[in-house]
Amino acid sequence: MKGYIHVYTGNGKGKTTSAFGLSLRAVGAGKKVFFAQFVKGKTYSEIEAVQKFLPDITIKQYGLGCFIEKNPTPADINAAGEGLKEVSSVIRSGKYDMVVLDEANIAVYFKLFSLSDLIEVIQNKAKATEIIITGRYAPKELIEIADLVTEMKEIKHYYNKGVEARKGIEY
Amino acid sequence: MKGYIHVYTGNGKGKTTSAFGLSLRAVGAGKKVFFAQFVKGKTYSEIEAVQKFLPDITIKQYGLGCFIEKNPTPADINAAGEGLKEVSSVIRSGKYDMVVLDEANIAVYFKLFSLSDLIEVIQNKAKATEIIITGRYAPKELIEIADLVTEMKEIKHYYNKGVEARKGIEY
Repeated sequence: MKGYIHVYTGNGKGKTTSAFGLSLRAVGAGKKVFFAQFVKGKTYSEIEAVQKFLPDITIKQYGLGCFIEKNPTPADINAAGEGLKEVSSVIRSGKYDMVVLDEANIAVYFKLFSLSDLIEVIQNKAKATEIIITGRYAPKELIEIADLVTEMKEIKHYYNKGVEARKGIEY
Repeated sequence: MKGYIHVYTGNGKGKTTSAFGLSLRAVGAGKKVFFAQFVKGKTYSEIEAVQKFLPDITIKQYGLGCFIEKNPTPADINAAGEGLKEVSSVIRSGKYDMVVLDEANIAVYFKLFSLSDLIEVIQNKAKATEIIITGRYAPKELIEIADLVTEMKEIKHYYNKGVEARKGIEY
């Protein structure tokens, strides 16, 4: 069976959350999932849930920066590059049915690695592997090669009313 | 802590999937989740995953119809109404930190229950309970009372290329 390339982008809530939902569905069907997180280091509750309950999901974080308020350091760039290299070999190996590159769009946006490196990694995937890419600002070249693209569009967000991120809801 | 009302709507992939991702995050943080499914009966893999791995998520289906190709029968309407009644008491009880009403928008769209009944149920929630509502065609009155609304917008979908729904990816 052929695996497809999904992109979840846009400014609304639900991108990383969808990637976790897809992972849950996949392991429910007996599939193996590799979940790579670039950039964002605030997904503690999912990691706790995965480590506690879901042994068929392998989750790895490459760099813990958030980059909303500061620029990436050379160490961040290095961590993301090493991460992409590792994910590349995972994607080629065919050992996982689904590979998530969470916030890879943001990594490209902040020049942690290049778009052409990301596209090369995806295009060399094992045939049956399903690829999930998340993050705002999906570049149009990525949208072109993707098979499924959803834009999560913010219609209303409680952050604008001053509600802060909460454990178990946002992270 | 106050709980908020989320709505995930639009024609793109990622609504029910996000609700499952939110549930996973919530149980990772030690919260209890009640996941009510109206209308759609094709979420086998998530149900398998939940029953196998995630005892802190209670999942219930009310009516198994899909309604893309046929209209609801009186039995469907009855099942959805009974379901809404049960979910109503769950939402008032405060026993769950998060309650998902998956495809409730579709249930309203197909007149399985009324919008005013749905809004009444939500507005009588226990203060701390977080409410997640999914489905296309979210009515504007619901968007008005919600605290967070994301529109999942289809940019590209492989269904349009003839790819069929796959176990572990779509259901």
